Amino acid sequence: MTLKKKKKNKPWAGRFSTGSSKILEDFTESISFDQRLAFYDVKASIAHTLMMKRTKIITGWEAEKIINGLSKIMNLVQKNRFKFSKNFEDVHMNIESYLVKLVGEVGKKLHTARSRNDQVAVDMMLYLKDESVLIINLIKNLQKSLLAISRKSIKIIIPGYTHLKQGQPILLAHFFLSYFFKFQRDLDKFRKSQMSLNVLPLGAGAMAGVNYATDRKYLARLLKFSHISENSMDTVSQRDYIIEFIFCCSMVAMHLSRLAEDLIIFNSDEFNYVEIADAFTTGSSIMPNKKNPDVLELVRGKSSKILGNLSGIFTLLKGLPTSYNRDLQEDKKILFETIDYIKPMLQITADVLDHISFHADKIKEKMRDGFILAVDIADYLVKKNIPFRQAHYITGSIIKYCIHKKKKIFDLDLKEFKKYSKDFKEDIFSILDYKKSVESKISYGGTSTRSIKKQMQIAKILLNKK
Amino acid sequence: MTLKKKKKNKPWAGRFSTGSSKILEDFTESISFDQRLAFYDVKASIAHTLMMKRTKIITGWEAEKIINGLSKIMNLVQKNRFKFSKNFEDVHMNIESYLVKLVGEVGKKLHTARSRNDQVAVDMMLYLKDESVLIINLIKNLQKSLLAISRKSIKIIIPGYTHLKQGQPILLAHFFLSYFFKFQRDLDKFRKSQMSLNVLPLGAGAMAGVNYATDRKYLARLLKFSHISENSMDTVSQRDYIIEFIFCCSMVAMHLSRLAEDLIIFNSDEFNYVEIADAFTTGSSIMPNKKNPDVLELVRGKSSKILGNLSGIFTLLKGLPTSYNRDLQEDKKILFETIDYIKPMLQITADVLDHISFHADKIKEKMRDGFILAVDIADYLVKKNIPFRQAHYITGSIIKYCIHKKKKIFDLDLKEFKKYSKDFKEDIFSILDYKKSVESKISYGGTSTRSIKKQMQIAKILLNKK
Amino acid sequence: MTLKKKKKNKPWAGRFSTGSSKILEDFTESISFDQRLAFYDVKASIAHTLMMKRTKIITGWEAEKIINGLSKIMNLVQKNRFKFSKNFEDVHMNIESYLVKLVGEVGKKLHTARSRNDQVAVDMMLYLKDESVLIINLIKNLQKSLLAISRKSIKIIIPGYTHLKQGQPILLAHFFLSYFFKFQRDLDKFRKSQMSLNVLPLGAGAMAGVNYATDRKYLARLLKFSHISENSMDTVSQRDYIIEFIFCCSMVAMHLSRLAEDLIIFNSDEFNYVEIADAFTTGSSIMPNKKNPDVLELVRGKSSKILGNLSGIFTLLKGLPTSYNRDLQEDKKILFETIDYIKPMLQITADVLDHISFHADKIKEKMRDGFILAVDIADYLVKKNIPFRQAHYITGSIIKYCIHKKKKIFDLDLKEFKKYSKDFKEDIFSILDYKKSVESKISYGGTSTRSIKKQMQIAKILLNKK
Amino acid sequence: MTLKKKKKNKPWAGRFSTGSSKILEDFTESISFDQRLAFYDVKASIAHTLMMKRTKIITGWEAEKIINGLSKIMNLVQKNRFKFSKNFEDVHMNIESYLVKLVGEVGKKLHTARSRNDQVAVDMMLYLKDESVLIINLIKNLQKSLLAISRKSIKIIIPGYTHLKQGQPILLAHFFLSYFFKFQRDLDKFRKSQMSLNVLPLGAGAMAGVNYATDRKYLARLLKFSHISENSMDTVSQRDYIIEFIFCCSMVAMHLSRLAEDLIIFNSDEFNYVEIADAFTTGSSIMPNKKNPDVLELVRGKSSKILGNLSGIFTLLKGLPTSYNRDLQEDKKILFETIDYIKPMLQITADVLDHISFHADKIKEKMRDGFILAVDIADYLVKKNIPFRQAHYITGSIIKYCIHKKKKIFDLDLKEFKKYSKDFKEDIFSILDYKKSVESKISYGGTSTRSIKKQMQIAKILLNKK
Repeated sequence: MTLKKKKKNKPWAGRFSTGSSKILEDFTESISFDQRLAFYDVKASIAHTLMMKRTKIITGWEAEKIINGLSKIMNLVQKNRFKFSKNFEDVHMNIESYLVKLVGEVGKKLHTARSRNDQVAVDMMLYLKDESVLIINLIKNLQKSLLAISRKSIKIIIPGYTHLKQGQPILLAHFFLSYFFKFQRDLDKFRKSQMSLNVLPLGAGAMAGVNYATDRKYLARLLKFSHISENSMDTVSQRDYIIEFIFCCSMVAMHLSRLAEDLIIFNSDEFNYVEIADAFTTGSSIMPNKKNPDVLELVRGKSSKILGNLSGIFTLLKGLPTSYNRDLQEDKKILFETIDYIKPMLQITADVLDHISFHADKIKEKMRDGFILAVDIADYLVKKNIPFRQAHYITGSIIKYCIHKKKKIFDLDLKEFKKYSKDFKEDIFSILDYKKSVESKISYGGTSTRSIKKQMQIAKILLNKK
Repeated sequence: MTLKKKKKNKPWAGRFSTGSSKILEDFTESISFDQRLAFYDVKASIAHTLMMKRTKIITGWEAEKIINGLSKIMNLVQKNRFKFSKNFEDVHMNIESYLVKLVGEVGKKLHTARSRNDQVAVDMMLYLKDESVLIINLIKNLQKSLLAISRKSIKIIIPGYTHLKQGQPILLAHFFLSYFFKFQRDLDKFRKSQMSLNVLPLGAGAMAGVNYATDRKYLARLLKFSHISENSMDTVSQRDYIIEFIFCCSMVAMHLSRLAEDLIIFNSDEFNYVEIADAFTTGSSIMPNKKNPDVLELVRGKSSKILGNLSGIFTLLKGLPTSYNRDLQEDKKILFETIDYIKPMLQITADVLDHISFHADKIKEKMRDGFILAVDIADYLVKKNIPFRQAHYITGSIIKYCIHKKKKIFDLDLKEFKKYSKDFKEDIFSILDYKKSVESKISYGGTSTRSIKKQMQIAKILLNKK
Repeated sequence: MTLKKKKKNKPWAGRFSTGSSKILEDFTESISFDQRLAFYDVKASIAHTLMMKRTKIITGWEAEKIINGLSKIMNLVQKNRFKFSKNFEDVHMNIESYLVKLVGEVGKKLHTARSRNDQVAVDMMLYLKDESVLIINLIKNLQKSLLAISRKSIKIIIPGYTHLKQGQPILLAHFFLSYFFKFQRDLDKFRKSQMSLNVLPLGAGAMAGVNYATDRKYLARLLKFSHISENSMDTVSQRDYIIEFIFCCSMVAMHLSRLAEDLIIFNSDEFNYVEIADAFTTGSSIMPNKKNPDVLELVRGKSSKILGNLSGIFTLLKGLPTSYNRDLQEDKKILFETIDYIKPMLQITADVLDHISFHADKIKEKMRDGFILAVDIADYLVKKNIPFRQAHYITGSIIKYCIHKKKKIFDLDLKEFKKYSKDFKEDIFSILDYKKSVESKISYGGTSTRSIKKQMQIAKILLNKK
Repeated sequence: MTLKKKKKNKPWAGRFSTGSSKILEDFTESISFDQRLAFYDVKASIAHTLMMKRTKIITGWEAEKIINGLSKIMNLVQKNRFKFSKNFEDVHMNIESYLVKLVGEVGKKLHTARSRNDQVAVDMMLYLKDESVLIINLIKNLQKSLLAISRKSIKIIIPGYTHLKQGQPILLAHFFLSYFFKFQRDLDKFRKSQMSLNVLPLGAGAMAGVNYATDRKYLARLLKFSHISENSMDTVSQRDYIIEFIFCCSMVAMHLSRLAEDLIIFNSDEFNYVEIADAFTTGSSIMPNKKNPDVLELVRGKSSKILGNLSGIFTLLKGLPTSYNRDLQEDKKILFETIDYIKPMLQITADVLDHISFHADKIKEKMRDGFILAVDIADYLVKKNIPFRQAHYITGSIIKYCIHKKKKIFDLDLKEFKKYSKDFKEDIFSILDYKKSVESKISYGGTSTRSIKKQMQIAKILLNKK
């Protein structure tokens, strides 16, 4: 590699002799991905200028000129017409150098009393404040779909599973609502993480603070932060809010993956519980019979990349020595990719749910042998005052007998029941009913229709909370 | 492998023909590690019994017998004298079977209206409630050490670094306080995570709810939960609170690793800023000259395992199909190990700080050339109304000149300064002073003594907050 | 924490003033887990002594005394009767100090011309050489089970899946053999990794080499290493062979997890393809009907921890500065845990396979509609010279028609076929047969009986390869 | 979301009713990133066509037409002028549909006897074969730089470190060569991984094999594979070769990160051992004095993303059920990103090394106190027949005395030495010399000039190996 002569266009050119080469510029630039921060960068610069005016670091006239220039840039940015160039490394230098072009020497005053270290931190926080709102809305949107589908499926009884084995009959709505509440916790996590985004970093300077009597409280008011960071070194070196954000995304991704996995299994020919709309499936290039749940598989697959990103950002931070290091530039790549992944995953999962239908008849077939009513039989005995463990043992023995004899539970007569316990009476047969089983789960949070309706009511209230 | 005949001692033996082998029992058992839940398991069982009595699922007399037995067990557990056996798979069965031994058949009623799926969830939450208090206290303890060491080091000026290059002079206290605030955020995260531990899972049954009119609100009151879980399927399948807990530990670990890394660098012969007490160092088996910061290296090394665990728990959950699966047993191994790692890491880091001392004289030597005052020179020019970017360029050129001529900043005379800008006057020399540089960082959060004292005041208030 | 006075029992006590405390000793000790290296440590020490004798670093008489002592220790270690104590930090110091007790002052000569840094590296490599043989044998054992079960299932036709949707009929043996070849690659990886374990680290000293004319080639011969490490700094700082070993374990874990996942799905009530022996399942504490594939779920769950460990060890190494750092002690925890996990996972999966049986009749039912023969229909048309893409489209339309009309493929008459292509003739009906479909996959590696037998033959050859 | 009508442009359109929407197409498409496979896709298609001709699956005339079309496409691809469109999902369909446009109906015969599942696998392997050569060359290039810098630094003595504390004097060349051998192992890993890329997947079909008497050996010959995959199910479901490739990249990344970390520390003002060329550093936007090693920090930072990717790909695979699933599409994103990261990291690290210089004088200053010669003093005593452990203790005590008295080792007189052992004689002073210390490390692999030259010779031989 031969080295270029001088870094003329760099803000720190004074101290340097040779310039950097093309391959290097590609390696170090961030403008190709941090340009999405332009809006926030200009916004923060305007606030910074107003603050410098108020604290007399610059004059009113200077401030006016600078803000004028920044407003023009903002306009271009919003119209997507600002031209970014790799010559200027990152979003900050792109904007600042264009400002100088617009307003002349006075533009060089903008960077007084701040550093790129606190500047990038405030940009990121402003950006994440907006993104977190978008993601919260997408989660709500998904929850709406889950609630809607719960309404549609409240009369369908399916086997509830543990260990992927049929356990007890439940309402299909119960299943969908279980995801509603998982995503509710994710949503709460995003809300809690917004507090971490509410501490103004701007004003920390490079890491020591600045030689000016700045007014950070005023800055915070302008930019709508509720708190100010307390320690300037901490401020420029920490990315806790980014890790927390990626962690929240990882929780969502993990839940989406599990939901996708469940629907893929329900969509297998053997389960055959759901029909995914054609739009969300694809065929095979070779097997004309196939209708594959590709979209859900991609949701499941993409979640892995997000989890990998969480691992990556922790690894990055874990090894860093004191204060700011350039490694931190990579946090943006990891964060932006994570955000660009999670949003369509949320949207599309909701879409899938909105267009799913059920094969209620097929589902019913799956429970034909009635073994799934075992707990109800055991509890029948308990109510006859047989200790639960014993009741459990008796019922287990009955199931074994049925398997051995290739009988369904419904095929047994009272005599057969009585072989296992004399406490069985005629009323045992009234127990052997899926609907009844479901409705007898009267505990709070259980699968009875009443309880599910209660859950739906709570879900609705949660959705309406701002 | 030859298979044993029958699983007599298993609670679900009724349905089974052959028993499991030794290697299998080792593979599936959890009693070797989940016995630490015994206290919480008994506690929850007592509450469950009281609730069953109240709701007339069992009689008062039965409840009395059971509680009597459980109290005896609790006593043994607290005295560390309860005998756990691998014959009974897990902590729940160990306790239940011993209960039956103590109180007879009535003990078999304990497991009415609950399942191990909700039982283990409530045990884990009760356990984590306690552990989170312990960890919060350990964080506070570390913060106390950081505050104490800040007090001791408030008069020592060190180079502040970015990119591991000297940037600007700062107070050493500033450095230690920067970690105080990092750990404050971790502490807040643990506090926020306590909310996730405040939602009672008990009563969800295996996943569908139970066939009894239980009173979960009463249970919540007894066990001091502020909320009740809304959906029984969600309740038994989710481990969000465990992942969140490990995430919080990971944040702490990452911060501890960075602090350790900084101190290790400060402890190198080349920096030579700190002296770590002999107790926290070890020698070399071959090099008699060595005094190695092993303890801090172990803190840094152990943090990797915690980060690996976060990756592991996410991977585990991400792949799970609907509701409860036995894979979840591994969550305990991951969680317990993480907790057993993070607690001594916190304690010992505090201990290291309590016994550290500084080589103030050596530190001063490191800044001899005065280049670290460059920002102050630039800001001097700014105050003479030179735009910051230009002032920055001029100062950079002066530094280059010094390097070239092998001069310190302090060696320059006014003529030399004036070569770079006519705006330099005699008063430039009053700027060239580390103490002055530090004190001129008057912005909120900056490194001036006044600002650092303010930070220490806030730190004290935060420490006193319950 | 109060500090103890002096580290008398430490090999490096000369330079130190105060001793370490209990909590510290617990934090830094490794004897609780590295004692498993004792056998290898003694073995390497004996070789080191012989080498020192040969190169006249010590006298013949001294060597004799030392080797005599080491042999006694070896004897104790092999009988599991050596007493390890936390007083002596790690396995090396435990053995050395006991040696001095046994043979007196001359024992203090053992550590001449070596350091713990190269000593632990050689111990680990010797240990891993043995463990890799054990694991390779366990993989072979599993492959034997896979081959055996393939033999048993060569006549059973099941649906082959992609996207968890039925694709084409295959022999069940084909499925099991697909795992045989996955594990074959893992086995090859372990074999390749053995090369990395064949480079003698002993003799590197602390990192610079030693002040003695050692004979490392002789050492290599004694300890059966084929190569000697070339650079002493690299030697003590690298753990590539450990990471590679954990990587190989991770590949195995990932494949075991997928196999477990497949069997769990095949074991669901809806698929109902396999019957897992009672010994490898457990029941529910509440649902007497359940027979859960817990063992396979644990295999799947435990694989997550291994993957987390891979992430952890990389994170650990990634952040390390030059040469040896104490962080490396954690490599052992990560490695040993991984090995202790993977071995029973391999053993038990083989056991599960040895005791599995199939519901051939149930499987047949699952393919009733015959859609799974679509590729065969398309290829029928191709052979009538219709381009594949068009044939694919035609067949897809026929399937759609069947679904719409609720017909099986077998229900269609020639007229219906001809509506979609006039190229359909009477011979189409001979195509509509699962067995025929399977046998027509005549390509190398395909699912025809002949091809499967060929695979089994190759599998047998691979198994017999040493 | 409203659904579009029909998937006309899809190869599997026959079976479907409604089409997919824009957002969906973005979510599922892979053409934006898999287009880099175009060259290999065409190459494999040509071989597939030749094989179909040879086995009479298609006629010679048909083959000619298809190959003619494919050659035109190849030409466009190589000139970077092929137009890819999202309408056609992925690279395979883009090419096939354009082929049909070029050559008409006969083009639809290309996909006979294969599936996208085996097609993408062969494309990936062909691609990775080329990439692995590129990466191996980049590693070699870096090794060349390491060897060159070793030559330049063979006369410079620096402190060798363990625990980031000065241990023993070493040649700087020793340090650089230690990385040479690390990267040699990485290179060997890539070479070993090439074997995994040498097993032809093409011909496996969708997963069951195909209904044609294909000639896979001929295909292997045409495409230069040495082996053929044995089991078609395994073939389409495995991505072991991709994980192994990312693992190899992760090893390289980890080593690059450590090298970067070392150079960053050596570049600190306190160490001040190296001068990184201006081109590879950047300044500060606020501190004119800074010359930051940004490029190396980015190398260190970017390595985290690669490690995250390894974690991600394992997580992805770990959760997959049998055979091919669409999740696998994400493997490409993870793999391509990893490759696009590692290549410039390797290139630029070599560039940095090519333009680095040393401050030999500054380095010498760092060892002034001579404590770093302690091992030599101990070994001096050993040669006077004092057991090593005792010699170690004596030397440690001398160091402690020096620290206490603020003396250098060189300041001690014989009387002082004799206080610690009567065995010290006048000749002890001849030991106290850095150069002598270095040259006395005569063991194989040690730091003596002779040994280092031997290492350089071996390095040269390794570099020349093809």
